[in-house]
Amino acid sequence: MAVYTDVSDEALAAFLAEYDIGTAVAFRGIAEGVENSNFSLRTTAGDFILTLYEKRVDPDDLPWFLGLMEHLAGRGIVCPQPVRGHDGQALRQLCGKHAAVTTFLSGVWPRRVRPEHCAPVGAALAALHLAGQDYRPRRANALGPAAWTRLLDRCEGADMVAPGLHAEVASALTRVLSGWPAALPVGHIHADLFPDNVFFLDGRLSGLIDFYFAATDILAFDIAVCLNAWCFEPDFSFNVTKARALLAAYQKVRPLSSVERAALPVLCQGAAVRFLLTRLFDWLNTPPGALVTRKDPIQSLRWLRFHLQARSEQAYGI
Amino acid sequence: MAVYTDVSDEALAAFLAEYDIGTAVAFRGIAEGVENSNFSLRTTAGDFILTLYEKRVDPDDLPWFLGLMEHLAGRGIVCPQPVRGHDGQALRQLCGKHAAVTTFLSGVWPRRVRPEHCAPVGAALAALHLAGQDYRPRRANALGPAAWTRLLDRCEGADMVAPGLHAEVASALTRVLSGWPAALPVGHIHADLFPDNVFFLDGRLSGLIDFYFAATDILAFDIAVCLNAWCFEPDFSFNVTKARALLAAYQKVRPLSSVERAALPVLCQGAAVRFLLTRLFDWLNTPPGALVTRKDPIQSLRWLRFHLQARSEQAYGI
Repeated sequence: MAVYTDVSDEALAAFLAEYDIGTAVAFRGIAEGVENSNFSLRTTAGDFILTLYEKRVDPDDLPWFLGLMEHLAGRGIVCPQPVRGHDGQALRQLCGKHAAVTTFLSGVWPRRVRPEHCAPVGAALAALHLAGQDYRPRRANALGPAAWTRLLDRCEGADMVAPGLHAEVASALTRVLSGWPAALPVGHIHADLFPDNVFFLDGRLSGLIDFYFAATDILAFDIAVCLNAWCFEPDFSFNVTKARALLAAYQKVRPLSSVERAALPVLCQGAAVRFLLTRLFDWLNTPPGALVTRKDPIQSLRWLRFHLQARSEQAYGI
Repeated sequence: MAVYTDVSDEALAAFLAEYDIGTAVAFRGIAEGVENSNFSLRTTAGDFILTLYEKRVDPDDLPWFLGLMEHLAGRGIVCPQPVRGHDGQALRQLCGKHAAVTTFLSGVWPRRVRPEHCAPVGAALAALHLAGQDYRPRRANALGPAAWTRLLDRCEGADMVAPGLHAEVASALTRVLSGWPAALPVGHIHADLFPDNVFFLDGRLSGLIDFYFAATDILAFDIAVCLNAWCFEPDFSFNVTKARALLAAYQKVRPLSSVERAALPVLCQGAAVRFLLTRLFDWLNTPPGALVTRKDPIQSLRWLRFHLQARSEQAYGI
């Protein structure tokens, strides 16, 4: 679940008085998401999402995230829009946390990915990459390759999750880092475009949410994240039809260079390592009874093994 | 959190096709509640709550609960209304669970109870008791006094929570059961009217939710539940101003007999025991990592100790 901080009705009323969006009509914690506390908020003016930023988000990064969301929306990407208060500020404090109100997006995220979801995701990702081009501020990817060795060092108990896991990941990481591409096109990436961050309505993609892992990094790495997130079946088999649909739709909007295409295997390996490491770290460091859904690190390990077998971009259907 | 079962978008679409409420526009798990899976559902026709009934609810009881909610609403109690499908049925299956769609209620539950909340709660409880009078079907209270001894027997590890806890509760339970009133007015009670089940809007009580503990039992026992739920401060002190407001407002709608008033101490003791026992049982039997907020049994123990000191109804301000 994702309500770490509860908000009293008085605190909410005082907070809303800073805005021009009326008074609360309904207010419910949202069960999805793992990083922040999210509430569905209806006011006399309409529907909004209230987010309280919890410890994993660096407050110094918040203006960058909110600025990116505003920038992208100005260029046609449907994503939550920060709502500004009377003082012009979108970011303020609530219950001792940084907090923001954003607009409500219609749509339902796909609990089970079907092939027809994948082309819209590829197209939306490419559109996001193009729309971000003239957003000047940069944010280093705190969960990019430079962070992975340190993350693995902090997963000492890995073998309690699966025997031999630490050595297997360490070996893969060495290979990934030594083969990491040096000169691919860089831009602002979503970096976490899993199905629960993509809404569909009447069969069409209706919006993208949760930009709190976004960063300035290799654009094709974002594709690699999506290939992991959207193209594996529950039995860990890779669905190349989904991959082909995603990649073809991406390339219609932003064609990949041959160097980007050739880097897909190592980028996919890196993306699998990144989610494996954070899930493993959370698995080992989540106290029993914490209100967090721990995601299974072994799922990402299966992704990683597939990508380690990929000899070229042809493994992904192109 | 309260999403134990996730619902795929296809399953949701097929389910909604059984109703006249359009197609899904937004669908989010709700973080509140502990017994069932609840989703906030917006369709092209409006807002609804989708509930999947999890194992703690006896499916045979569901028609009684839904019938009670419809009955109460017909008599002016604002509570969720079951929505019937094309086939006239309000109850059907979704993802292998019993499921129902109910109407959406506006309002926000009070995270911090203030004295001015308590009179509306007392008045609403009395109105609920009167409105239920002509609902014929009865439901025995599965968590009433007849169940408490067995529940305590299943809490063998109680002393791991607090040394001496088992003996203290056993002693109180003996006293409560021996003094339990035999001939008080009976009716349909909510039995769980805690603050998170009462919505307020613009300072007025706007609705009551979660009737899945409702039963046919001593009406004044419902008052005792509310005195526990609404009148203790976070430091476990009893706020007699709140109690007086709650009781006075109740009695304006449904005056208590002298026998009912005199029974308040033992009823309050019983209500504290009931919540202590179910919380203790859950505390001892919730596996680490389960997505449930365990409620602290010690809180109810502190309530119980207060009520054991009460010599008469005067302890509650009347």
